[in-house]
Order: sequence, then C-alpha cells, then structure tokens
Amino acid sequence: MNIIDGGVCAAKGYKASGVYAGIKDNEAKKFDLGLVFTEISANAAAVFTTNKVKAAPVLISMEHLSKTGKTANAVILNSKNANACVKDAPATAKAMCSETAKVLGIGTENVLVCSTGVIGQSLPIDKITAAVPKLVGKLSDKGNSDAAVAIMTTDTVKKEYAVSFEIDSKECRIGGMAKGSGMIAPNMATTINVITTDIKIDSDLLQTALSDVTEKTYNCLYIDGDMSTNDTVILLANGSADNEMITETDEDYNTFKKALFEVMKNLTIMLAKDGEGASKLLIANVKNAPSFEVGKAVAKSIIGSDLLKCAMFGEDANWGRILCAIGYAPADIEIAPIEISFASKKGSIDVCKNGEGLEFSEEKAAEILSEDEIEINVDLHQGGESATAWGCDLTYDYVKINGDYRS
Amino acid sequence: MNIIDGGVCAAKGYKASGVYAGIKDNEAKKFDLGLVFTEISANAAAVFTTNKVKAAPVLISMEHLSKTGKTANAVILNSKNANACVKDAPATAKAMCSETAKVLGIGTENVLVCSTGVIGQSLPIDKITAAVPKLVGKLSDKGNSDAAVAIMTTDTVKKEYAVSFEIDSKECRIGGMAKGSGMIAPNMATTINVITTDIKIDSDLLQTALSDVTEKTYNCLYIDGDMSTNDTVILLANGSADNEMITETDEDYNTFKKALFEVMKNLTIMLAKDGEGASKLLIANVKNAPSFEVGKAVAKSIIGSDLLKCAMFGEDANWGRILCAIGYAPADIEIAPIEISFASKKGSIDVCKNGEGLEFSEEKAAEILSEDEIEINVDLHQGGESATAWGCDLTYDYVKINGDYRS
Repeated sequence: MNIIDGGVCAAKGYKASGVYAGIKDNEAKKFDLGLVFTEISANAAAVFTTNKVKAAPVLISMEHLSKTGKTANAVILNSKNANACVKDAPATAKAMCSETAKVLGIGTENVLVCSTGVIGQSLPIDKITAAVPKLVGKLSDKGNSDAAVAIMTTDTVKKEYAVSFEIDSKECRIGGMAKGSGMIAPNMATTINVITTDIKIDSDLLQTALSDVTEKTYNCLYIDGDMSTNDTVILLANGSADNEMITETDEDYNTFKKALFEVMKNLTIMLAKDGEGASKLLIANVKNAPSFEVGKAVAKSIIGSDLLKCAMFGEDANWGRILCAIGYAPADIEIAPIEISFASKKGSIDVCKNGEGLEFSEEKAAEILSEDEIEINVDLHQGGESATAWGCDLTYDYVKINGDYRS
Repeated sequence: MNIIDGGVCAAKGYKASGVYAGIKDNEAKKFDLGLVFTEISANAAAVFTTNKVKAAPVLISMEHLSKTGKTANAVILNSKNANACVKDAPATAKAMCSETAKVLGIGTENVLVCSTGVIGQSLPIDKITAAVPKLVGKLSDKGNSDAAVAIMTTDTVKKEYAVSFEIDSKECRIGGMAKGSGMIAPNMATTINVITTDIKIDSDLLQTALSDVTEKTYNCLYIDGDMSTNDTVILLANGSADNEMITETDEDYNTFKKALFEVMKNLTIMLAKDGEGASKLLIANVKNAPSFEVGKAVAKSIIGSDLLKCAMFGEDANWGRILCAIGYAPADIEIAPIEISFASKKGSIDVCKNGEGLEFSEEKAAEILSEDEIEINVDLHQGGESATAWGCDLTYDYVKINGDYRS
C-alpha cells in the first residue's frame, strides 16, 4: 500500500471542483460549494448521523440511495449552513440535487447532498442554483483540493488522504476528504466525508466494509460530545480499476478493507488534530480488554473527559482523571489490575500500576507532555483485545471559537 | 417553610467546626478539615458515586453505615486530597474515623468520612491526627460556616442553605452544606454534601426521601460530564425536634420531603452557579414530556452540550445547538412539535416552533442572554410531565482552572 496524492480524485474516473457561491459571507471569497463526480455510475455506501434531528440533506440522500438501490454519480456539498430545522430545508436540499443533475445531464436521484454549518437558517438556494453551472464547468481530475476546501467550516486545514494498492495485479486507489472540527462524538458517523475508490465491489460488501471501518475510526473520535444533525460518510466505488468484482469477504476484500481503514484512520487523526481550538492530538490506546467494545468504551471515556482534556492542555500528568474516567466508562471492568502510562516522542512514563499511583518524575512527565501528540496507554490486564480512540485537548480557543460561531 | 441561617448547624443538636490542618499548602491557612457532630445518634441516609473507582472514604463510610444499621454521630471531611487510588488510602480513611471517634469518645463506626481533591496522592494522616483534637475542641453550634469553608476546593464561595418548617406543631429544621465545582455529572449523587435535620423519621423513609430528592436535584446538575470517585451525600436525622416519629409516606413525610427538596435544590443551584469558571447559571426547563425520565434526559442533554455552553458564554442565541442536543438525548421523542424559548430577567423570546426556527430579534435575544441567569424553556408537546436541569456556561476560566489544578 502506498500513500498517494489526489484526495477524492486519486481514484480513476473521479472529478471534483469547488467554487465560491456566496453562502459564506467573506471578502476572501472562500469556496463554499463543492462537487464530486464520476461519469460511470458508482456503487454507493453511506453512514449517517443517528441524531433524531436529521438535517434535510441527510434525509434526501437517504431517499436517493433508496431509490437507486445504492448507486450514485455525484455528491454536492456546501459549508457554512447545515440546511437543518428550517421550513424550506427539504425543498432546498432537493433543489441542490436537481440543479446539479440538470447541468450534469443525469437523474436527480443519482446526486447525493451534504451540508454543514449553522442550524436553523435558510440556505440561499438562488446563490447555489446560480453557481452550479460554474461548479460543473470547473470539474477536473485535479479538483480534489478545491472540493476539500469548499467543505471547511471552522477547520483550519483541508483534510485529504489517499492510498493505492493492488488487487488482481491491478492498481487500485482509494481517497477521501473530510471536514471537522467541533460537534464530534459520533455514534454512527461523523462530520462530512466523501471517499472514492475505483475498485469493483458488490454493493452490500461495500456497505459492510464502510460500516465496520467507521466503527473503528470515526466512531472512535471524540472532540466535544456533541453529535451533529448532518453527519454523513459517503463511499463511492465506480469499478474503473477493472479488478474482478469482489463478491465475498475474501483476501481481495480484506486488502480493500485494510486500505479503507488506512484512509479513514488518517482522516480521523486529521480531524482530531484539527479539533476546534486543539493544541494537542490525544491518542488513547487500550490493550488487553475483554472485548473490542469494552476497550472502545474505555478509550472513548478517557478521550471524552473535559477534565483530562484540560490537564493535557496544561501539560499536567494528572492521571487520576484518567482512572476516574475509566471508572465511569459504560463497561464491566476490574479496576485493580489497571496500568497507565503517558508517551510521546520524548519517551514514556508509567504513572499507575495495579489501579494505584506510582512515584514518577514530574519533570520527565512534563517533558513528555510538552509534545503535540500524546499517547495515553492503558493496559487493562483482563483480556486480549485492543482499541484506540482519538481526540484533542480542551483549550481557550475552543471556547472562543464556539462562543461566537454564528456571528 | 422559612429560609433560615445556620447551614448544617441550623437543626437542633448539631455542632460543626473547621480548621487548617496543613493539607492545603497555602500561606493563608485556609481551612481544609471539617467536622459535623450530633451527640444524639442520628439515623443516616447516604447516596454515593456510581463510579467503579470508589475512593477509600466512600468505601469506609459504606462499611460503617452497614455496621451500624445506618446511624451516625459524626462526619469528618477534608479538602485538597481525594484519598483515592493510593495504597494507603483505606488505612488513612479508617484512621480519620478512629482518631475522630477517640477524641469524641464514640465508636469508630459512628463516624463517616468524606474527602475531596486530587486523586492518587497520599493524604498526610499525621497532619490530620494532629489536628483532630483542635477540630473537636472548636465544635460549636455556630461552626457551620467553618465546616462549609473547610470542604471548598476550586469553589469560589461556600455553599449553605437551611429552612424551618412545622410538623405536629413542632418547629423542625433542615440545613446543609455542599462543595462543587467541577467533575460534576452525577448518576447517583454529586460532590460532597452533608445535610442535617432534627426531625424524627424512620431510617428507611429517610433513605427513600434522600434518594428521590437526589434524583430531582443533584442528579439534574451538569457541569462537565465527569463523575467523581468521591461523590457523597449524607443526610443525618437526630430526632431532636421531638415530632412524632414519621413512619409512613403521609402528610408529615411530604412536608419533610418538600423541605429537603428546597434545601437540595438551592444547593444544586449554588453548585451550578459556582461551576468551575462559570459566568452564567443555565436552567433547562422541559415541559409536557411523556415522563419525568424523558424530560430529565432532554434537560440534561441540553445542559450538557459544550457547544451550547460556549454559545451561552458568548451570549449567542444559537438555538440550533439546543435542538441538536435534544435530538441526541437518550429518549424516545418526536422532534416536530417542539418549541424553544430563552428567558431571563430581561424577558423572554421564542426561537423555535414546530421543530423549526422562528424569525426573532437578535437584539432582543442578545439583551436577554446578557443576564447571568438564563432559562432555556422547552415545550415538548407530548405529555404532561416536567423536569429541570441546572448547569453553567463553558468559559476560558474552566480551561484555566483545570489546566493547572494539581499544581
């Protein structure tokens, strides 16, 4: 497997673009409308928010996938406005698809739609309608970066990742883009993500792979405990790599799934690093858990503790907050055998053994925690499974960003 | 019912005290060791943390209540150190009780113990042993304030509340003290609280009343999602008011329970107001819920949203975050009929109806949100039950306080 450039355009047969439609009110005319397109119809898998308040684009995308039996040619995306909880939201989401379909010359139901931004404000559909011809006109196999920029809200960097791998001696590719960076504590999905691949794979298997990998990547990401109304991950597979169709969970399927995991894990890490106001990436590794589920519950409980997030911001090895968070994790575990250590590029330090504190050098700990990527390693000593969760510290800037997001 | 002075000494037969034992390392010699005492043995009810990591004082208090069949004469409390997750913690907690018992001339099991502060550091028992005689010597029916100060950690104000009421034409009293102010998202209890009353009541009924009222007060308080290893509420009833013993859930019981609710509700509000870094008290009132449980789940989901907490700090009427938090509350509800409004001393403003946004004056909203007590009123329109949850905004100071708590 090789890391390659190209984001959502890395795989064969995909084009993308981004334009400034005027949804974002800014002088710099930052892109706010994006498009991903494959001329060859792709099998489409998706994972959506489990929030009972589902934004209109989520509902419309669900409807279109249901109508087509899970195929799609295009995904149109906008930032700055979530198109949720306003009367005209469903009509607007529908119009985004139909306008895009008209200009592309395909059926409305072959277009999926994602929106991200403020809830409860009308999305100016006129501006979008006016911009769609230009958006389609700009479609290019080098347009991935423009599309990735167009979905940014409070993100400080665009997020793209792609790899190539071999199946049947054919070169295959998979690449994706994502936006964060607050309101992230998914139960089924997170944020807005589009992933494209050129492999040929059965539609049900595509969904299985996406759901499984989501469970171990985006669903192990925790920024702030809020679950969005718009969370969507869409995975398109257009078959252009010309491999023999994958129809069962064989070695080829596993090769593909490993590549998908690599892309989604790296996007997850990018999302965690760019969490709103984040100054540090936090990685909670839990090993020797009785099951993956227990390990994951423990890892997410750690990464979700506001108190620990603050301590990490302050570079304070306050491991008691870790043990405390383990204690209230929704999982059946023994506390007595637990070991905890901190690690970074500067080394590793043990702080807790047998559920009790160890003497340790505060100086060494402070040196380790001064890095911007911190690992919190927990050995439960009660099984053989592992899980990892990703998150970030809680900083003044998180409060600042979210204190005046709407304005 | 009348509000009265006296905190834990308001009820007849209770004395309290506080001293500086040297656990807090400060020049101002702020009190760090407190005692509450009743010469007449009291029926004792308690609610403890549900965290699987239970601090030694929690385990020792549980053991003592079990040994005595739920009576007690004294509660010794310290701040600055949680006496949790260190090898010597159980021996230290036990010694705190036995030393206190020795000087008071009572049995060790008649003493309960509470600790609050940093997890994982040895509590200097020598300093406590040395201070206990002075602590007992200072016991006074005016010592409530000293005891309330002695349990403060990051609290900025001491928290006491007391009321008087009549049962059998006898004047009865109930009063309490509490400490906050981070690590608050209880499932069964919260923080450290001692409540004393002079009514005569059956032991089981006392526990029922405490558990019920905890459910509607402390368990509806949310500061930061972290549940402490030390959460404890102790309620002592020494019978000095000489009312006829309450043995069933009759009118007298209800009168008592109403008074207990008043005390615990007001302590809850004080805890919320003094949440770490808080600049605003937030009150989420949910009405017309299908059940209290659903109403409470919705109210707590709202009050627990970091994004909403930041928006309230920024005085931004970002109601979409409220509807979003309602949507991910663990409760079976319809979104379509929901109404939301903001209220404060400056008036009230409707922002959402039928699950959709309303046009509203941003100026008026900003004026309402400029107050330091904000009500978030939600009408679910799907039943007749109500619930309230209390919390606070998320501010720069929360991050600052918790970024360097240990040091």
